[in-house]
Amino acid sequence: MAESMRGLHRSHRCTEVSNSNIGEKVTVMGWVQKRRNLGSLIFVDLRDRSGILQLVFDEDSIGKEGFEKAGTLRSEYVIAVEGTVQKRSAAVNENLKTGDIEVIATSLRILSEAQTPPFQIEENSQTKDEIRLKYRYLDLRRPDIQRNLMLRSKVLYLMRDFMAKEGFLEIETPILCRSTPEGARDYLVPSRVHPGNFYALPQSPQLFKQLLMASGYDRYFQIARCFRDEDLRADRQPEFTQADMELSFVDMEDVLDVNERLLKYVFKEAINVDIQLPLPRMPWQEAMDRFGSDKPDTRFGMELQDVSDVVKGCGFSVFTSALEAGGSVRGINVEGQGAMPRKKIDKLVEFAKGYGAKGLAYLCVNEDGTYKSSFAKFMTEEELNALVSAMNGKPGDLLLFAADKNKIVWNVLGALRLKMGEELGLMDPDQYNFLWVTEFPLLEWSDEENRYMAMHHPFTMPMEEDWKNVDTDPGSVRAIAYDIVLNGTELGGGSVRIHQDDIQEKMFEVLGISKERAQEKFGYLLDAFSYGVPPHAGLAYGVDRMVMHMVHADTIRDVIAFPKVKDASDLMTATPNVVDEEQLEELGIAVIPQKEEDAE
Amino acid sequence: MAESMRGLHRSHRCTEVSNSNIGEKVTVMGWVQKRRNLGSLIFVDLRDRSGILQLVFDEDSIGKEGFEKAGTLRSEYVIAVEGTVQKRSAAVNENLKTGDIEVIATSLRILSEAQTPPFQIEENSQTKDEIRLKYRYLDLRRPDIQRNLMLRSKVLYLMRDFMAKEGFLEIETPILCRSTPEGARDYLVPSRVHPGNFYALPQSPQLFKQLLMASGYDRYFQIARCFRDEDLRADRQPEFTQADMELSFVDMEDVLDVNERLLKYVFKEAINVDIQLPLPRMPWQEAMDRFGSDKPDTRFGMELQDVSDVVKGCGFSVFTSALEAGGSVRGINVEGQGAMPRKKIDKLVEFAKGYGAKGLAYLCVNEDGTYKSSFAKFMTEEELNALVSAMNGKPGDLLLFAADKNKIVWNVLGALRLKMGEELGLMDPDQYNFLWVTEFPLLEWSDEENRYMAMHHPFTMPMEEDWKNVDTDPGSVRAIAYDIVLNGTELGGGSVRIHQDDIQEKMFEVLGISKERAQEKFGYLLDAFSYGVPPHAGLAYGVDRMVMHMVHADTIRDVIAFPKVKDASDLMTATPNVVDEEQLEELGIAVIPQKEEDAE
Repeated sequence: MAESMRGLHRSHRCTEVSNSNIGEKVTVMGWVQKRRNLGSLIFVDLRDRSGILQLVFDEDSIGKEGFEKAGTLRSEYVIAVEGTVQKRSAAVNENLKTGDIEVIATSLRILSEAQTPPFQIEENSQTKDEIRLKYRYLDLRRPDIQRNLMLRSKVLYLMRDFMAKEGFLEIETPILCRSTPEGARDYLVPSRVHPGNFYALPQSPQLFKQLLMASGYDRYFQIARCFRDEDLRADRQPEFTQADMELSFVDMEDVLDVNERLLKYVFKEAINVDIQLPLPRMPWQEAMDRFGSDKPDTRFGMELQDVSDVVKGCGFSVFTSALEAGGSVRGINVEGQGAMPRKKIDKLVEFAKGYGAKGLAYLCVNEDGTYKSSFAKFMTEEELNALVSAMNGKPGDLLLFAADKNKIVWNVLGALRLKMGEELGLMDPDQYNFLWVTEFPLLEWSDEENRYMAMHHPFTMPMEEDWKNVDTDPGSVRAIAYDIVLNGTELGGGSVRIHQDDIQEKMFEVLGISKERAQEKFGYLLDAFSYGVPPHAGLAYGVDRMVMHMVHADTIRDVIAFPKVKDASDLMTATPNVVDEEQLEELGIAVIPQKEEDAE
Repeated sequence: MAESMRGLHRSHRCTEVSNSNIGEKVTVMGWVQKRRNLGSLIFVDLRDRSGILQLVFDEDSIGKEGFEKAGTLRSEYVIAVEGTVQKRSAAVNENLKTGDIEVIATSLRILSEAQTPPFQIEENSQTKDEIRLKYRYLDLRRPDIQRNLMLRSKVLYLMRDFMAKEGFLEIETPILCRSTPEGARDYLVPSRVHPGNFYALPQSPQLFKQLLMASGYDRYFQIARCFRDEDLRADRQPEFTQADMELSFVDMEDVLDVNERLLKYVFKEAINVDIQLPLPRMPWQEAMDRFGSDKPDTRFGMELQDVSDVVKGCGFSVFTSALEAGGSVRGINVEGQGAMPRKKIDKLVEFAKGYGAKGLAYLCVNEDGTYKSSFAKFMTEEELNALVSAMNGKPGDLLLFAADKNKIVWNVLGALRLKMGEELGLMDPDQYNFLWVTEFPLLEWSDEENRYMAMHHPFTMPMEEDWKNVDTDPGSVRAIAYDIVLNGTELGGGSVRIHQDDIQEKMFEVLGISKERAQEKFGYLLDAFSYGVPPHAGLAYGVDRMVMHMVHADTIRDVIAFPKVKDASDLMTATPNVVDEEQLEELGIAVIPQKEEDAE
């Protein structure tokens, strides 16, 4: 039976009690982490969000009844205790903030009893994800998850604090928006008042923030919820949080400057990491060439080498035919792994195929200087030596090569490099390598659509020096776009936007979007711009990812209070669910019965 | 043709330039508010979010070409100007922050040309709402709307700042939630992965914040978007913003204390209003009896008087039959309005009927002490004198009476009181009367449902001293619930929650909710509580309303960047809209063709 807390006032959270309080009366409240009976004493570890405090019950201090009550305490009971702080009688517990003290209880109330939880409330729980997420309210009691969410709260606060001081206004944009059927899938919301019509949940506040610039708000910021109805991956959620900004009367340098200072401030205050400014920058082309990725993890080397020139004309047709088809041959040197067993190498080949490679060529430099290789028989010794030399191969090294279209070669080797880097422990989790990747291609050819697509979005400003080539060589035009990369993860990205109608018109033309179609999709934005629009630029961060990096979480679910699982359902509330027929009737929609083969 | 801003850096916003900069070179950018040609000079008012700055173009300073370009400037062109600050040559403009200076331009770039806007960008626009909202991006340029949104941004920042310092964690709760078909209508979101199933947008984060308390987060805060698919009123939007909080190990006094300090801080910092603490409190019963409202505007008197005892047994059957039916007779004294013309009084009667009254009895105390009244003929002079005396009626006063069930009497007189208060100018907009209304009834009888309903929600804690009467007299049980009222508006409200399973079980029983139904609707919350739950309490503010009061806006739309209109549509983006058939197919839903009579 639960007791009331009437008349009591908590004086401290658990770890707010310290040895400076010795001799003082305190009132503490929290959850029973564990109880131990030791002779005539009962010890209880009391837990709250701040940590653990040891309580001691003895009959002399609390009386017979209180002592007996203490004997009934079980894990997760919620209690209130008055008592006196004293130096710990037993050995000091170095692992606890309050390890040198304890509270000798003089009164005890049981505010809430508790069933036995289905799993222990403890750090680094090994309990299956499904169970933890079904009982998320218990999972959320675990100290590591609590630390994650407390840090997340702090990060949000720090960002807002910095942005406010820089003159950014936090302006809330709608969640009930217009559907723009392009890009990712929209979540739709049927309208009751306008049957047959729908709202869409925003994939980002992109158009609204550009409108706010046209409206003169100068500097906009928002921690915004965004929605994408995509098939989930490990680091994706149907709803996610963006730290979104847009600035007027600025160029790229202004955006990078304010964001570098933001990152420095937040990482220092949140996790005490010092970031050296200015952050390094790397053009997209260089990132692809050196790391096979537009978000390079620069904590380790193992960079890609283009050996196309070296193998040109060799006898290995896999190499030469790739070159003839306009592709390239590139490799990475996995130093010291020359003795890797054949079986493991075969697994790497399979891994590479998963990234689109037809195969993976390898060459081990034996300790005696001889080679073991999948393609040695097709090449002369001179050719092999030249190749090894181009790769800086030393005895004991493993050289891996991909030959294909550039895009595939980058993909394969970029992924292999990360895999090997991880396996070899080359990624120091305490190192924070930030990098701006810049000069992205403006356009990307789509075989599917048989046309150029905007790599970011159709409002991204081209680089002035390239724009003249848009007709002759659209693929060569670079954008004034930038991504901020941390240890191989894209934390955020943005661009300078087009504010000139002639460039915008040309851009739509290049993308094959007719004037009518542009007006239909973005009409209100184009209209807004026709009434005077300032030059503007912006950037958005993935907040979930940023916090995930800060706490080294394995999954994005560990930094979100109530996450969804891969099929976009919430296991705790059993959402989504079936709703009443009347609700659907009011909305003027009906569920289409699923065909057998579609049913799950 | 738009020019680039390459090579330019804005040095000041418009009103950041002051007479301390005289003689300095500045670079300013913004919108042309207006251009005037005055002899050999061109004057331009430059506008940005900070205000207005006067630019002067003369050929000597800017050259022929620049001067000619300045001559082409039109309203809403976006320009960048370099120039030198000087003392204003003409008369000082006292209305402008920069009224004593001007910038003599040395260079001019037109960053964006502009069409002629459909309405003037000016304060207090008289343009029709529909036009302003269709061109919301232009409407948002108006300085009064900009001030509103800047203040709103500041209020959000101040709240977060205060809450963070008080140990509250900002924790984001889901937008894709489970539908709970009760209370207001949910917005639904069809699931693609689980055809036939739906998410619902949250009406509030109530259950999530209580879960967070059960999970030990101790103090939660969130500026949360909430959604209700209701027919819109002037101060309602389909999506609105709540400042939401919940605290553990507290009682009502703790919640009121932290919120009083929050309000004092925010109102002082945001609009320089001093709030005296502690705020006054009034039990719900007193608020109804004195003001006919659970959110009394205490800036003026005109309080309700219960004259049931006075008219008991009089000859006016409207009064006596109301009393016999268990109702009451109450009145207000509209002082000094005794000479109100009959026509106007008739309008008041109509107004009263709109609030459910069958009629409205009135009595004018003439200057000569005689009465003019709708019911004088039914009462003796003694009875009339007693009534006037009970109402403190003086010559020249107008007494208005309602006789009915208490609920209707309160409604009618409460509304009349506000109407008269407004018409007579008794509501000083610069006076901020805060008030806690407390001791709400726990339960409210519903004739429709033929059962008691929770006045707040089923987790609201009853007052201990009343709970014993729950079986014998449920309607008399008061709740530990509280609303914060400002000048007749409910800014927010909350309650202490039930954390004892025996009380919760009884509460469901009283509400006629079976164990199975409770489990179905709130199962995960009840389960969470069974694993140990702290005493907790919370409160939520309507942020839109709060800001609306601070800026004295006439409509809630004036404090929301992209509001919807009454039919829940957005006129700017033409939302909601029809979506592609394939989108619906993917979601496994279909639009039901509307019957003729349903079609609008």
